[in-house]
Amino acid sequence: MRTAFYISDGTALTSEAFGHAMLSLFPMKFKHRTLPFIDSLEKAQRCAHQINLAAAEDDEKPLVFHTFVNTEIKRLVTQSDAIHYDFLDHFVGRMEAELGVKAQPKTNRTHGIHQDYNFRIDAVDYTLANDDGVSTREYDQADIILIGASRTGKTPTCLYLALQYGIKAANYPITEDDMDNLQLSYDLKMHRHKLFGLTIDVERLQHIREARRANSRYASLEQCQREIDKIENLYRQEAIPFLNSTHASVEELAAKIMDEAKLERHRY
Amino acid sequence: MRTAFYISDGTALTSEAFGHAMLSLFPMKFKHRTLPFIDSLEKAQRCAHQINLAAAEDDEKPLVFHTFVNTEIKRLVTQSDAIHYDFLDHFVGRMEAELGVKAQPKTNRTHGIHQDYNFRIDAVDYTLANDDGVSTREYDQADIILIGASRTGKTPTCLYLALQYGIKAANYPITEDDMDNLQLSYDLKMHRHKLFGLTIDVERLQHIREARRANSRYASLEQCQREIDKIENLYRQEAIPFLNSTHASVEELAAKIMDEAKLERHRY
Repeated sequence: MRTAFYISDGTALTSEAFGHAMLSLFPMKFKHRTLPFIDSLEKAQRCAHQINLAAAEDDEKPLVFHTFVNTEIKRLVTQSDAIHYDFLDHFVGRMEAELGVKAQPKTNRTHGIHQDYNFRIDAVDYTLANDDGVSTREYDQADIILIGASRTGKTPTCLYLALQYGIKAANYPITEDDMDNLQLSYDLKMHRHKLFGLTIDVERLQHIREARRANSRYASLEQCQREIDKIENLYRQEAIPFLNSTHASVEELAAKIMDEAKLERHRY
Repeated sequence: MRTAFYISDGTALTSEAFGHAMLSLFPMKFKHRTLPFIDSLEKAQRCAHQINLAAAEDDEKPLVFHTFVNTEIKRLVTQSDAIHYDFLDHFVGRMEAELGVKAQPKTNRTHGIHQDYNFRIDAVDYTLANDDGVSTREYDQADIILIGASRTGKTPTCLYLALQYGIKAANYPITEDDMDNLQLSYDLKMHRHKLFGLTIDVERLQHIREARRANSRYASLEQCQREIDKIENLYRQEAIPFLNSTHASVEELAAKIMDEAKLERHRY
């Protein structure tokens, strides 16, 4: 199996995003190695050595996705026995010509602390303090309030919205106790323009709940079916937008919610 | 000000990563617009219209960073009045030649649900259940345990480790009560090979705490200084690796911790 390296003088998150997007186009498996913070000639040399070792071991040239600012470090790494992909390099000339401005590469600019960084930390604090319905007093500050049955993906989606986009995302569970006379609570009604629902396929919900509380009523197919039916009805009656999380990752859920709820992200 | 568009038939996270990395090379400001899930000809047409409007409004051609699978949709979008950057397009031919395999683009492959997706949701659950020292019973399952004074960035870093890498990251606060006779508790000693410390510049800590509890002893410069001095001493005495979070984003902290603690990520 061929090895893919993601290398940078910073976090290597950009190299990873670039490399993963490229490799996802090919129906093959790769070994993955990330080498972040390659910010000295000595580290660059060790890095080139690792690449050469992988080339020898795999008997196939590794694919190396890299973004470097320092040209000496880049030169050392690209001397290794591999196929090197440098996407910044390729596009930067074109962009300089178009913008009429010289590029000024700086290390760690992409994932460093921006002026809007505190937004994200505040959003994480907010999301934790308003997770799972523990408090509704700060809903006036919420950018969005996710609702749904237990284990439909509310919490991870809220955390991703906070970390990635700086969105203050509260979430409120609709529980079994609510089922007999299901309606929006006063707190939710007051903020109904911020509500966004999650739902999930019943079989998937049963599977997830079974892993947490085996053989419980909570995990029974009947109970899951009952909750999902009633909750989806509520969404429709109250015209609350909602998404099905069964086949969606947190990234997809978060991006869809940003788009459909027309949320302004606090981070770029 | 020129507008930058990030467009895709999926989440557009890859287009954003690509575009942000490029634009971060230039000392200029841009307006940013993300248009995810452009997955029909009708949406593509509306998207092209929005780009044309921005071109007219800004009196400068927008920069468009896009990744599309469907060539008809791509054609519609790239007819708009803008400069288009398609990084997949440029590299895919080279990679096909090198791998000897035809690319098979599929929508939502990069940020969809992978087989290792449940790892990340489990890691988020774990991290929340083991946040802020609320429980130490599951430390045998931890991949890493962050320790440090209050407000040094433990929780957001743990959540990022869980969401991005599928790492089970617990965290344990070292509080004022511990200061008189500071040593590792029994639970921490038992798992000392998993410990990783965070510290922060005293002035920055004071500033953050002041925003939370103004004029408190907790936020006083003396108290912050005392805690940081004692805790850094502990790290050195016990040979616990540690990082200063003052000028580091959660992305940087998480990537450094992954690297220094040699953690195996559960997601690619």
